[in-house]
Amino acid sequence: MALVRIIKKDFIIRLEKGAIFHTNKGYICHDDIIGKPEGVKLFTSLNKPTWAFRPLISDFLMNVKRVTTITYPKDLGYLIFKMGINSGKKVLEAGTGSGALTMALAYYVSPDGKVCSYEKRPEFSEKARENISRACLEDLVELKVGDISRGIPERDFDCCILDLPEPWKCLKSVTRALKSGGSLAIFLPSVNQVERTVVKMLEFPFLKPEVVEVLIRKWDVKKNATRPDFQMIGHTGFLVITRKIFDESGV
Amino acid sequence: MALVRIIKKDFIIRLEKGAIFHTNKGYICHDDIIGKPEGVKLFTSLNKPTWAFRPLISDFLMNVKRVTTITYPKDLGYLIFKMGINSGKKVLEAGTGSGALTMALAYYVSPDGKVCSYEKRPEFSEKARENISRACLEDLVELKVGDISRGIPERDFDCCILDLPEPWKCLKSVTRALKSGGSLAIFLPSVNQVERTVVKMLEFPFLKPEVVEVLIRKWDVKKNATRPDFQMIGHTGFLVITRKIFDESGV
Amino acid sequence: MALVRIIKKDFIIRLEKGAIFHTNKGYICHDDIIGKPEGVKLFTSLNKPTWAFRPLISDFLMNVKRVTTITYPKDLGYLIFKMGINSGKKVLEAGTGSGALTMALAYYVSPDGKVCSYEKRPEFSEKARENISRACLEDLVELKVGDISRGIPERDFDCCILDLPEPWKCLKSVTRALKSGGSLAIFLPSVNQVERTVVKMLEFPFLKPEVVEVLIRKWDVKKNATRPDFQMIGHTGFLVITRKIFDESGV
Amino acid sequence: MALVRIIKKDFIIRLEKGAIFHTNKGYICHDDIIGKPEGVKLFTSLNKPTWAFRPLISDFLMNVKRVTTITYPKDLGYLIFKMGINSGKKVLEAGTGSGALTMALAYYVSPDGKVCSYEKRPEFSEKARENISRACLEDLVELKVGDISRGIPERDFDCCILDLPEPWKCLKSVTRALKSGGSLAIFLPSVNQVERTVVKMLEFPFLKPEVVEVLIRKWDVKKNATRPDFQMIGHTGFLVITRKIFDESGV
Repeated sequence: MALVRIIKKDFIIRLEKGAIFHTNKGYICHDDIIGKPEGVKLFTSLNKPTWAFRPLISDFLMNVKRVTTITYPKDLGYLIFKMGINSGKKVLEAGTGSGALTMALAYYVSPDGKVCSYEKRPEFSEKARENISRACLEDLVELKVGDISRGIPERDFDCCILDLPEPWKCLKSVTRALKSGGSLAIFLPSVNQVERTVVKMLEFPFLKPEVVEVLIRKWDVKKNATRPDFQMIGHTGFLVITRKIFDESGV
Repeated sequence: MALVRIIKKDFIIRLEKGAIFHTNKGYICHDDIIGKPEGVKLFTSLNKPTWAFRPLISDFLMNVKRVTTITYPKDLGYLIFKMGINSGKKVLEAGTGSGALTMALAYYVSPDGKVCSYEKRPEFSEKARENISRACLEDLVELKVGDISRGIPERDFDCCILDLPEPWKCLKSVTRALKSGGSLAIFLPSVNQVERTVVKMLEFPFLKPEVVEVLIRKWDVKKNATRPDFQMIGHTGFLVITRKIFDESGV
Repeated sequence: MALVRIIKKDFIIRLEKGAIFHTNKGYICHDDIIGKPEGVKLFTSLNKPTWAFRPLISDFLMNVKRVTTITYPKDLGYLIFKMGINSGKKVLEAGTGSGALTMALAYYVSPDGKVCSYEKRPEFSEKARENISRACLEDLVELKVGDISRGIPERDFDCCILDLPEPWKCLKSVTRALKSGGSLAIFLPSVNQVERTVVKMLEFPFLKPEVVEVLIRKWDVKKNATRPDFQMIGHTGFLVITRKIFDESGV
Repeated sequence: MALVRIIKKDFIIRLEKGAIFHTNKGYICHDDIIGKPEGVKLFTSLNKPTWAFRPLISDFLMNVKRVTTITYPKDLGYLIFKMGINSGKKVLEAGTGSGALTMALAYYVSPDGKVCSYEKRPEFSEKARENISRACLEDLVELKVGDISRGIPERDFDCCILDLPEPWKCLKSVTRALKSGGSLAIFLPSVNQVERTVVKMLEFPFLKPEVVEVLIRKWDVKKNATRPDFQMIGHTGFLVITRKIFDESGV
């Protein structure tokens, strides 16, 4: 797989001998990339400068074939860091969606961890499998088709991430599946979902959650003309982050 | 080590048999925590509810003994994700400062990666060593005293993070030390430093960088009274993120 | 009245012959200000530089004796401009609170307009009267004690501003009191109040409202060290702004 | 003049008997608006609901025929309020640009104040004259063609607003033209312009200025689905706001 940057746009392509990649800035022969050092400069048939790299995990995230809304690097980076998801962690995810978040989780738990990801729509799970394979992360992921609100057999997860519309229905299942001390993060588009989730959470053994929005402000930096970008992403979603406390009743 | 949350405040303490931890909400006996399950609830001598956890890497970050300004989870999470710093990566950092960023990098490259961190003030490097040991991450870190702008002998880093006042002086050293395709991120408080860095970067083999600020908006969520927090952190710093391109001149 | 700026802090004082104004940066004799040109520089008894001005309306706003939360220049400026409140306009306000918003409205409708302001707590109305007199704006304001949700006798207002906790209860009264084409703005701290207000508004003759937050980011500008302020006001309230449409049923 | 809202889009049209206004949502006969009450509901030929209002000053601002970048309500409202621009004020503006800011200033100083606006490009001044006439504000405005950095004959302005690329060249002229105690506001797109202006300002009799950005976050409010808008305007410009202090040297 190669990340190709043409002017300001990035593409991820699967390199094949003899193949040609066409863009509206001209085409590139895969053979001009295969075997070359990373970061090599080349030119399209229309003489536009181009660079080829191995894709980073954030590149895969932004180039996923989507069936649902995207998860943004700004939100994912914050979640992964706040939850401490690193090598060896056992992570539960629901729902899988396009598998973008799944890929990122798999990348961070490698080489010894595991991501178990539930999705109730089989066709989404199938599409996610393709995306995850494309990033060569399939060995770290177990994709399951099912509705976690009905309970799941797995236990002792270090972390859990919920990215589905009614997470309040899953809190019982999550409580059982998560280790005591484990981290839970929930991604939600509307403030109503946030309120409903946080209020329901009071009935379960969790610390008072942190609720945040992560905003990214891009800058256009030029000698003597530096200013923020005119356009900005105003909203992606809210993050609810907490840890499971020890539950004496042994739920 | 234990993270103790009393009301809304978090403390990291080194557990010792028979020791007592005093706060303005009353004291806690370490023996009440030792051997207990993670997330256990206890009460201070003044009957305030308290929970004890293993500290997460983000807890260590916010509780470091500081000699310099802090690096915030919002900035760190974004950097780590955008640069793809995970298990096995070889990372260069300068300067070490309090070692907070060093700890986070070590945590993400474990168990097989390595962080090489330069600091020109020996007393800072020493303080950082203490902080890193406290988090049991010392085996993943090589602390060096020196000024990287004068060149360093190490080569082939996957990633480099600069958190020092005049990064433009280090770009030559970084170019040599970083792999082709490797990621570079720079943390800078003022917009003048950003402009100077970005302009100077044009002379070196790097992609046009992404320049961003990460802003966190916290919410106070209550049934029928949900609103953003009245206070907000308005600024920590700017992030400049790029990748090294292949340099035909072989610098 | 004079606005006195000592170092970075502003005070509004009523000038009196022979009086002395004490601060923790030293004292100033009123006689050193009386009769002097506007913007005159003087020094406190502790030799701190000081400037004296006539207060602007925004100075009065920030120096009001408060009985309620403050209305911020950022929110007020946006409201006044979006509603087109200028000389001659007839404005309805509820509730009066500390009278800060009332003062600003009076200032903008002068010399020929009128502000009619309702407040159901008589002691608040009394305190507001003092604040408004201090700014010499009492001739433009009619303060009334009462609950507008029960209906008011006045009609044909150009604009209406609601700054009270349950504005949805006042929409019927406002609809009757406002001219067709007139502007309505509502200031609300929580997102729940916003949703409830906007949903209820659908039952009344108003355009789909604009709902916004106004955020101010302050900058610390210094040669070669320019950056945003570290602290920021994260939230004051939401603004709901609309116009009354012609109601054929003649409510 | 009428403001016509069709679906979510606003248009300003000059009403003429027998004329027809065409849009991509169908056409409207002017005769259906003329003589009707404000806020009247009508339907386009394609049966789309439409409302007709008298345009507010903020509507004129957003519908000006542009020759330069727009001045936004968020910035204008803040400026007008912080400077206390109301009925009777004498205001200096440079440059006139499209006349959008000029119109807003004229609206707020009416009926007795005056706006004197300089523009060095005659064709811009001419276009501004059209826009200002369209809003019937021409009696309150004196448009002048010239470069204020070379000095102007007018004196004793209450307020001055600069919206031109090199305001530091105008500070001497502004100092002479502005009353002691008068307010000065400067609108600037880049942070470099801000720094240069603020540093130069130290040589002139002005208070340490306030430097801010005004950001507007729009919300999409729906029952049980309330969230911020996905898109946001990330930047328009920086505002530098100060007051002239008394200058003993009598510049």
